[in-house]
Amino acid sequence: MSKEITSRQEDYAQWYNDLVIKGGLADYSAVRGCMVIKPYGFALWERMRDELDRMFKDTGHENAYFPLFIPKSFLSKEAAHVEGFAKECAVVTHYRLKNDPNGGGIIVDPEAKLEEELIVRPTSETIIWNTYKTWIQSYRDLPLLINQWANVVRWEMRTRLFLRTTEFLWQEGHTAHAKAEEAIIEARLMLDIYADFVENYMALPVIKGVKTASERFAGAVDTYCIEAMMQDGKALQAGTSHFLGQNFAKAFDVKFSDRQNKLEYVWATSWGVSTRLVGALVMAHGDDEGLIFPPRIAPIQVVIVPIYKGDDRKEELDAKGKEIAAGCKKAGIRVKFDNNDNNRPGWKFAEYEKKGVPLRIAIGLRDLENNTVEIARRDTREKMSYSTAGLLERIQSLLLEIQESMYQKALSFRDAHITRADNWDEFVRLLDEKGGFISAHWDGTAETEETIKEKLKATIRCIPLDNPPEEGKCIFSGKPSSERVLFARAY
Amino acid sequence: MSKEITSRQEDYAQWYNDLVIKGGLADYSAVRGCMVIKPYGFALWERMRDELDRMFKDTGHENAYFPLFIPKSFLSKEAAHVEGFAKECAVVTHYRLKNDPNGGGIIVDPEAKLEEELIVRPTSETIIWNTYKTWIQSYRDLPLLINQWANVVRWEMRTRLFLRTTEFLWQEGHTAHAKAEEAIIEARLMLDIYADFVENYMALPVIKGVKTASERFAGAVDTYCIEAMMQDGKALQAGTSHFLGQNFAKAFDVKFSDRQNKLEYVWATSWGVSTRLVGALVMAHGDDEGLIFPPRIAPIQVVIVPIYKGDDRKEELDAKGKEIAAGCKKAGIRVKFDNNDNNRPGWKFAEYEKKGVPLRIAIGLRDLENNTVEIARRDTREKMSYSTAGLLERIQSLLLEIQESMYQKALSFRDAHITRADNWDEFVRLLDEKGGFISAHWDGTAETEETIKEKLKATIRCIPLDNPPEEGKCIFSGKPSSERVLFARAY
Repeated sequence: MSKEITSRQEDYAQWYNDLVIKGGLADYSAVRGCMVIKPYGFALWERMRDELDRMFKDTGHENAYFPLFIPKSFLSKEAAHVEGFAKECAVVTHYRLKNDPNGGGIIVDPEAKLEEELIVRPTSETIIWNTYKTWIQSYRDLPLLINQWANVVRWEMRTRLFLRTTEFLWQEGHTAHAKAEEAIIEARLMLDIYADFVENYMALPVIKGVKTASERFAGAVDTYCIEAMMQDGKALQAGTSHFLGQNFAKAFDVKFSDRQNKLEYVWATSWGVSTRLVGALVMAHGDDEGLIFPPRIAPIQVVIVPIYKGDDRKEELDAKGKEIAAGCKKAGIRVKFDNNDNNRPGWKFAEYEKKGVPLRIAIGLRDLENNTVEIARRDTREKMSYSTAGLLERIQSLLLEIQESMYQKALSFRDAHITRADNWDEFVRLLDEKGGFISAHWDGTAETEETIKEKLKATIRCIPLDNPPEEGKCIFSGKPSSERVLFARAY
Repeated sequence: MSKEITSRQEDYAQWYNDLVIKGGLADYSAVRGCMVIKPYGFALWERMRDELDRMFKDTGHENAYFPLFIPKSFLSKEAAHVEGFAKECAVVTHYRLKNDPNGGGIIVDPEAKLEEELIVRPTSETIIWNTYKTWIQSYRDLPLLINQWANVVRWEMRTRLFLRTTEFLWQEGHTAHAKAEEAIIEARLMLDIYADFVENYMALPVIKGVKTASERFAGAVDTYCIEAMMQDGKALQAGTSHFLGQNFAKAFDVKFSDRQNKLEYVWATSWGVSTRLVGALVMAHGDDEGLIFPPRIAPIQVVIVPIYKGDDRKEELDAKGKEIAAGCKKAGIRVKFDNNDNNRPGWKFAEYEKKGVPLRIAIGLRDLENNTVEIARRDTREKMSYSTAGLLERIQSLLLEIQESMYQKALSFRDAHITRADNWDEFVRLLDEKGGFISAHWDGTAETEETIKEKLKATIRCIPLDNPPEEGKCIFSGKPSSERVLFARAY
């Protein structure tokens, strides 16, 4: 076991931090709650961003960019939104620094006070709907399908790398529609795209569902979500898509004239995923040796390491390694040939295991003799010797196999962690002893939800979209219920 | 002439704004000095970003992400830097809003005051070099070649869309090297990449040069730049690359142990281009009908418009248009087939002219008969009828031709706007009557530079890198000078 990395059993939270930091994904910064995303972590985020961006564009969305700052008064325009967002946020009050005339160094110039404070965007509905007012006049301007890749700031008291940071990177889609049904279809479409991405690229099964009223986005009529299960039995919300009704259109007075020339308020959605997905990927797949990345999203899919014995046939080893790397590259495989002399093969093996590279190919002197290479799978840690004949096809099929196998492993784990509870004691016991999703009846009231949250720190993660109706009694109040919901402790 | 667009002759500044706003690139926002980049403008920026990003990666650079906020004290650590940047900037002083107990709505919570104010990054040298301190220990960690795509904020008093906005998007490269020469080579390499990009993608010739001491980046030993010429005879700085010496390494105490185990300060560069490039593109190429985009950077390279006569052979027109579009797409051409029934062909023609789409293909009923299409070039506004046989090859060669022709046109204009002046009267007259770059002798003092700037609003844009030595006398002071420099009024 890697000495650098705390084991999951010993300290799951520390294990996570070790993976993030020692795997080279991110670092703490000098600014409270903000992280530095390191090149390897950013390359992963770029992979995620590029695939999602392609999916958004394939479904007719365009990117745009809106201001970082939101006038304070904008936050107050939508009644529910202000409750949710006008709280912990970064407030810009001044626009100039100056030298302290009393020699105290650089100080904020008291004369450069803004008339109205600016809030660093925690989310952009308000500034965007204020803009849409000038962009939307007629049904011809609809639907308006816009996405933005941006940084946002929410002043979190307790932060964790990627999972909850004061500043984070995300995308936020903001669409406008002529009809309620079209907006709902859009919100569901984006949820499907998120689920497709997380399942098929990140190899992480998700449950699609809808949030209860108390867990809804501030300003939404309905919040759809995808929920994933981590190895410690806690749930993680991986993405949300909101049907906003006409709430923001009314708050910012955005109307369009329909085909009959009648003025109507516009219907809206918003949807987002963030760098939090990186945290989900780390937590869901990693082991005590380090990160494990699914091939489709891994910044490096294959690393090739020549095993030198002094200078013996060094050039041949390099030539062989470069040849395999060139073949991979040509086939569109993200490959790295690491012949850096500063580090020994053993160190490199540990390093790329820690970094979660799906396949490692080692080439030694004996391999030159036998026309073979040694391939190691990161997910199963199996090592195999392969002939160099047909190697590229073998690499390609192994990458597919790893992708599928990682998904199946996560799926088995997740499915083994959905448990039914039919009474309170069982519910409490399951939560404490097993964790995971607990499928239980709930009386539909915010009071019960709140009480359970206070007592057990468990929340209703979602009401699954494909939920079968089932008569039952609320786990807590005993009142009648018509379907089960999924409870869990969550990140 | 387009009625919507003010002519250049009438009001150049208004012409520019009309192109940006009516061409669909950007809008003013509700936040002073900040703009909204609209989908078409953002697509252009994405084209720029993607090409530059590829060039950076091809030369070994990796992307990362550093915090938006910089602790106030960081700005003071490098003596020159603080003078340049600790002035007009957005200052975060509080981290919470609350309901006014006196019913005044949402107010800043006076109890949530930060101990140390945070500055929204105007540039990231300080926060990055504070991070590099922990990343760099040994010569093995060097060179460190990192780039960041980010938003930055400089509280500008007078703003102009794209050219000077409070918030703007850019990339900033920050590299660390073991030797001064390596850092200088890096700074020059990045200048070459910028010049390559602006000339070969944006079709805009640039002069590579070095700034005088007073025009240097705050904290740099040398600032290299590329300078372009706009149609009104004003210069525009399109990109800068700085050799920072050991200034930031010393300010943040970043040392490495070399091969002899001796501790040395690290050598640095930084370099950046921004959304200002969009402004340069607009100003350099546009005409009184609207934008003109060079094919290699245009979000839409070819637009295809079917000319319906009622429902007569409408399906055939559509089929033909789609076939040509499919052929283009397959060949990697960015094409749009616009058969939107809401707008008439004449409106579409004007719209795509305004938007600067390099080629327009119109298909009418007669074209169906004759197996032809009408192709219109945006740059020359020539219209030609072409056979559909071999059309794709024709489109490809036309796109290349337009790219080259736009560059040559800009080059002729630029070259015709470099004029030598050998005495003060000539200098003043040229500046007022002709504009452009004025190549003149300067005595090398900051005083002369400052006086000329105050008197004439002209600055030394750069000392060209390929400048021939030439004995002469300063245009202003008459003191001896060993080379000419380029003066201009500038954006």
